[in-house]
Amino acid sequence: MNQTMKELMERKSVRVYKEQKIEQEKKAAIIEAALQAPTAGNMTLYSIIDVTDPELKKKLSVTCDNQPFIAQAPMVLVFVADYQKWYDLFCKYEDMVRAPGMGDFMLAADDALIAAQNAVVAAQSLGIGSCYIGDILEQYETHRELFSLPRYAVPAAMVVFGYPVQQQIERVKPSRLRPEAVVFENIYRRLNTEEFQSELNRVTDRGEDFERWIKAFCSRKWNSDFSREMSRSVKAMMNQWENEGQQSDEA
Amino acid sequence: MNQTMKELMERKSVRVYKEQKIEQEKKAAIIEAALQAPTAGNMTLYSIIDVTDPELKKKLSVTCDNQPFIAQAPMVLVFVADYQKWYDLFCKYEDMVRAPGMGDFMLAADDALIAAQNAVVAAQSLGIGSCYIGDILEQYETHRELFSLPRYAVPAAMVVFGYPVQQQIERVKPSRLRPEAVVFENIYRRLNTEEFQSELNRVTDRGEDFERWIKAFCSRKWNSDFSREMSRSVKAMMNQWENEGQQSDEA
Repeated sequence: MNQTMKELMERKSVRVYKEQKIEQEKKAAIIEAALQAPTAGNMTLYSIIDVTDPELKKKLSVTCDNQPFIAQAPMVLVFVADYQKWYDLFCKYEDMVRAPGMGDFMLAADDALIAAQNAVVAAQSLGIGSCYIGDILEQYETHRELFSLPRYAVPAAMVVFGYPVQQQIERVKPSRLRPEAVVFENIYRRLNTEEFQSELNRVTDRGEDFERWIKAFCSRKWNSDFSREMSRSVKAMMNQWENEGQQSDEA
Repeated sequence: MNQTMKELMERKSVRVYKEQKIEQEKKAAIIEAALQAPTAGNMTLYSIIDVTDPELKKKLSVTCDNQPFIAQAPMVLVFVADYQKWYDLFCKYEDMVRAPGMGDFMLAADDALIAAQNAVVAAQSLGIGSCYIGDILEQYETHRELFSLPRYAVPAAMVVFGYPVQQQIERVKPSRLRPEAVVFENIYRRLNTEEFQSELNRVTDRGEDFERWIKAFCSRKWNSDFSREMSRSVKAMMNQWENEGQQSDEA
């Protein structure tokens, strides 16, 4: 296995960091790796907000479902799905410019995630841990104000970085599902619940306790407040993006 | 610069492939690298469709904005944002399960893209080229039928892979924007059109010809049929995902 493959296989989320700062040249390299990622039509349909202000980190640690470790992370990058710069330029040069839609929203979000994952892989190669914070999708109105985001720029991903403490280095990476349960040839295969349960049992090793575990998991991950808030917030992003009634004030 | 960083920096899209097959163990390694990617709550909110059927590749080369090289690619993976398996399981064990929403849609799409980019990076480390096909976001109804996708499983990304021909190896990677134009500290900075134009000119080197170039680009990338279709199609995915009126037939 080559070194890159080894790093991809071993990478796991790191949530507790040494106090050690990330060196400026390493930070620059991580960001450059993100910028060198594939991007649709070479358009760089994203921006990166480098959160260095401790107060802002603290706010994010609250707005992103109360996770104090965010405030402790030496490096915090928010990947913003961003069509604003292109839309502004198109409107400058063309009279007829169609309104942005959900395809543009997704393409820009895809760009942002691809860049984010390059940053994660780059960090790993430099011995720097990372953790995605999906909760940046929540509290859209608050984040829009915090970052001063215009209409066609929405948070798509946040990644926090830092040197892992020894305990985090030693933490066993959680098992992943096997290809049998995830990869299908030519046609999607809808797993029946027994099959999926048996695969999850292999990973989580809950055995007899599975029913209690899945109920608690459903309650924590699905029927929970943060999860409802995420869907409300993302819907608000989408509405703002595609509401044609407000289009004129952007052109 | 370490080997991983070097590969991230050098990776560029490859659209012309040798006839050489991708060895089974390399393919398995690429897929395993995808599966080992970060995933929200370790939930693997995606599935991968491994398109091996030449007829299906040919169809995709048409539905994905008529790009014949797709049919020539030795390996074609479709990354599907997939909450179906979890939703089915939650519904089996809990009476009250909230309906899926746009937050779940985005989180699953994020998972799919993160996994896809790990596959791209893994392939690069093995000397295998790749190209994202954003057009998999188009023609949702057709792709849903082709892959037999249930309601909460939608195409998020497609990547095609193959060994690059010499000309592709020698092709110069298109320049990316500089960090100055993409990375902002603590707060978003809306580029004014002059600044963005000047940065684009640095990358595209259009000079006096910029206006003609940007008009043609807008017409090709934004006001174009494929682009309108992408927004229509993604909106259709979202509607299907969140239309509560149809919820009962899934539970």
